[in-house]
Amino acid sequence: MTPSKTFKQKLAHIIFDYDTVPAKMFDLVLIAAIILSVFVVMLDSVPGIHAVYGEFFYGLEWFFTILFTVEYGMRMYVASNRLRYATSFFGIIDLLSILPTYFSVFFPGTQYLLVIRFFRVLRIFRLLKLVKFVKEGEYVRNAMMASSRKILFFLFFVLVTVSIIGALMYLIEGEEHGFDSIPEGVYWAIVTITTVGYGDILPQTVTGRALAAMLMIVGYSVIAVPTGIVSAEMASMNERIEADLLKNDKCCKTIDHDDDAKFCKKCGKPLG
Amino acid sequence: MTPSKTFKQKLAHIIFDYDTVPAKMFDLVLIAAIILSVFVVMLDSVPGIHAVYGEFFYGLEWFFTILFTVEYGMRMYVASNRLRYATSFFGIIDLLSILPTYFSVFFPGTQYLLVIRFFRVLRIFRLLKLVKFVKEGEYVRNAMMASSRKILFFLFFVLVTVSIIGALMYLIEGEEHGFDSIPEGVYWAIVTITTVGYGDILPQTVTGRALAAMLMIVGYSVIAVPTGIVSAEMASMNERIEADLLKNDKCCKTIDHDDDAKFCKKCGKPLG
Amino acid sequence: MTPSKTFKQKLAHIIFDYDTVPAKMFDLVLIAAIILSVFVVMLDSVPGIHAVYGEFFYGLEWFFTILFTVEYGMRMYVASNRLRYATSFFGIIDLLSILPTYFSVFFPGTQYLLVIRFFRVLRIFRLLKLVKFVKEGEYVRNAMMASSRKILFFLFFVLVTVSIIGALMYLIEGEEHGFDSIPEGVYWAIVTITTVGYGDILPQTVTGRALAAMLMIVGYSVIAVPTGIVSAEMASMNERIEADLLKNDKCCKTIDHDDDAKFCKKCGKPLG
Amino acid sequence: MTPSKTFKQKLAHIIFDYDTVPAKMFDLVLIAAIILSVFVVMLDSVPGIHAVYGEFFYGLEWFFTILFTVEYGMRMYVASNRLRYATSFFGIIDLLSILPTYFSVFFPGTQYLLVIRFFRVLRIFRLLKLVKFVKEGEYVRNAMMASSRKILFFLFFVLVTVSIIGALMYLIEGEEHGFDSIPEGVYWAIVTITTVGYGDILPQTVTGRALAAMLMIVGYSVIAVPTGIVSAEMASMNERIEADLLKNDKCCKTIDHDDDAKFCKKCGKPLG
Repeated sequence: MTPSKTFKQKLAHIIFDYDTVPAKMFDLVLIAAIILSVFVVMLDSVPGIHAVYGEFFYGLEWFFTILFTVEYGMRMYVASNRLRYATSFFGIIDLLSILPTYFSVFFPGTQYLLVIRFFRVLRIFRLLKLVKFVKEGEYVRNAMMASSRKILFFLFFVLVTVSIIGALMYLIEGEEHGFDSIPEGVYWAIVTITTVGYGDILPQTVTGRALAAMLMIVGYSVIAVPTGIVSAEMASMNERIEADLLKNDKCCKTIDHDDDAKFCKKCGKPLG
Repeated sequence: MTPSKTFKQKLAHIIFDYDTVPAKMFDLVLIAAIILSVFVVMLDSVPGIHAVYGEFFYGLEWFFTILFTVEYGMRMYVASNRLRYATSFFGIIDLLSILPTYFSVFFPGTQYLLVIRFFRVLRIFRLLKLVKFVKEGEYVRNAMMASSRKILFFLFFVLVTVSIIGALMYLIEGEEHGFDSIPEGVYWAIVTITTVGYGDILPQTVTGRALAAMLMIVGYSVIAVPTGIVSAEMASMNERIEADLLKNDKCCKTIDHDDDAKFCKKCGKPLG
Repeated sequence: MTPSKTFKQKLAHIIFDYDTVPAKMFDLVLIAAIILSVFVVMLDSVPGIHAVYGEFFYGLEWFFTILFTVEYGMRMYVASNRLRYATSFFGIIDLLSILPTYFSVFFPGTQYLLVIRFFRVLRIFRLLKLVKFVKEGEYVRNAMMASSRKILFFLFFVLVTVSIIGALMYLIEGEEHGFDSIPEGVYWAIVTITTVGYGDILPQTVTGRALAAMLMIVGYSVIAVPTGIVSAEMASMNERIEADLLKNDKCCKTIDHDDDAKFCKKCGKPLG
Repeated sequence: MTPSKTFKQKLAHIIFDYDTVPAKMFDLVLIAAIILSVFVVMLDSVPGIHAVYGEFFYGLEWFFTILFTVEYGMRMYVASNRLRYATSFFGIIDLLSILPTYFSVFFPGTQYLLVIRFFRVLRIFRLLKLVKFVKEGEYVRNAMMASSRKILFFLFFVLVTVSIIGALMYLIEGEEHGFDSIPEGVYWAIVTITTVGYGDILPQTVTGRALAAMLMIVGYSVIAVPTGIVSAEMASMNERIEADLLKNDKCCKTIDHDDDAKFCKKCGKPLG
């Protein structure tokens, strides 16, 4: 059964890798199908559009469900470790995003759970590898990782602040001004410190407004903290990258030089 | 026909360049006319003002239309490559910004399309060259270009997040709380994550508010990413500019020295 | 009475330090109890939940109050300087967070003052020392301290701006448009300059809207100032930390090296 | 008349300088009086407070007016160049902030113009010199100055964007959705791009909401530009300041050293 095994290996390569033309094509088609199916779920939720195209979308829904079922079967078939795939994040999402359509045959209404299919959109990040966006992704991720503990500390501080202010506002404003409970006060404090400011819950006493004004100005100044953390981290990264380029003579090879350039414009070495 | 040709060349120089006094004058007058005509369109759209000055503005509209028609004719006449100008971005905008007035004679109401004239305001960026603002523009543009891929990646991440959260909120809140469809949920998520917070669509269940609070805090922290990218890029640019000034002894020539300075305050070399 | 004294010393160590297992355990249990008691106060304030679980929460409230009373007594007993603890910030908070429950026996309603217990949550920052978060906290605090005078100057500028604009808006819009007094105008200006934008007080005249638009754009540009201050400060700190690591050969010891690394990837020295 | 002349010189020194104890005292008392008088104007504008304390505030108003009149007279008397003071910014503000009270005797209602007295608060920035805040002020001002042209360019770009989007929204949404005129559309665009988001004017069509979502995301990303400009400028300034400290051995004198320090912790030189 060598040919069959070779076919399975080929299929595995096409499905899980993206370094050859057929593998790239498979990923592109899959991502296009995911985006399309998500758009169908989106549009089908609009009452006016559902009334007209409901039947058509119903058909499309089944088409995509069968397509993704086949894809799921193929992934299970070629996976070197089936249990690991089935229990991985994407394995579970892949399964959950096809089940609702089947369930909806027996239990009408469950097709709304198709919303879980939106998580398949995360697979779109694989597209980044296809279009060579991977460097940018890594840059942003590295900076986020390096500063994640500092940002967590900052969020911690924000949470304690909104808890205290939310409780105080419940005492000051009370139910007659829409602060029905402490959790509601905390919700209001989050809406205010993040400068979203819906305006559904509003302080109306003088003390409440003074406290709110303080919270706003704190929020306005404190936003500088995560921004400063990430900015400083990225500046350090840029310096390290540039120093690295200079030290290892990598610059001559990685930088785009003008056609008539005879010397590297970065380090001054003659170009080959 | 040499004199005529010379006249055409002179005209082309005046219209398309801006390095002599008449060429500068032409640009300044043209930009003033564009801004004025845009203000007329703006004011004419205010019902109260239209009732009183409508007739006067109608006259002005025709005045500017004829002026811009003459200008368009002149540009076509002197352009070295007429097809290229006619199909360029500004060529199309120039044409589209005069047509509505003519059409409105036959089809009343089409004068509203004059709004397209607002795009002519973009030509105002040429003014920057006149007032030596070009360096600042290039600085900002270079920094934006260098970080555009990273910012695109960031926007990509934001789009996936608002899609998933918007779909979840549609499920959680439903139509009775104003989340009429998934696209509406996505619109709400964009309004919230960017901290605009209109307050026309509002989460009202406990789960919905908890998810909204999470989205706000994510938006509040995540704004640090594009800011950090541009800050780091600009800091790198500043360093490169300063290093360049020092290396090439350019500093002595480009920096403003005090009248009694004998040595360059940047590199210490004696000034000539 | 040597054994008793030793017991007191041991207790003091457990309560005030956090470098041994029992001391860590005490802190963790205490913080868990504080968070739990705060959640109980929060949930008890929700009318729907209070109606059902009110009795149960009342019991829990007494349980936590007695627990914290015992803890307060223990702290007083083992404190080397009792007056200093009793008059310290946490000493006062600790006392105030148990009194309301006792008072509520005689004066119903005072249990709402339990909200002060939220300030005990600040003790949660000790938790950071337990989970080695202290470095991040110091980093953020140092940067905030170093830039606090600059940020204070910035807030000063913001306060003068909102005072002047608030007074002008009161004159321009007046009571018929909701600007009932100058303090209300100042409140509106703070809500606007911080981009919170509730929408409860709104400019409606042309002049008022023009002034509001200016204030918004100023607020949008001026937010760059605190952000820039903290970013620059953190970038300086990062550089100093890195320079310090290189100079003192600390890098070889503090950085995580790959298992097969023979040379420090930072300074190039051979690893021991 | 030498003694009188000396008295005039002494008075001029006390009023216009702030380097001796009496001169500092004069400034502190004046600023306290300005802040107090501004608070009186503020509180008097609150209907409830005016009803009770109106008479008392009326007396205070006259007290402050006479005080500031005497101060204005003194300034005029001692000024070396009276015309220059009278036509300077503060000279005009000083005069305008006392006139309304006198006018209100003949024309009731003009006392509202006292609001102009708020501009006297700007004099508070002199206080900064008293409390040695001047360094921070200069730091922020230098960074703002150095980046002012770049920020102006950015504001220019924002203005063109909101003009175009505002005009488009007027066409798309029209009067039935509250976009009564193009200027109103531009106002809405400013409220949205700055993330203030009042919610008084709201897009309701699908096209309008899509355009609004785009504008929000642009505003969310574009805020990075002024922040980046100021951050990079401040980082450059910090580096220059530090380099300057090291080069000129200033560090040993300006930095706070521990009491037992024998060497400068910055440059390593032995301390005197």
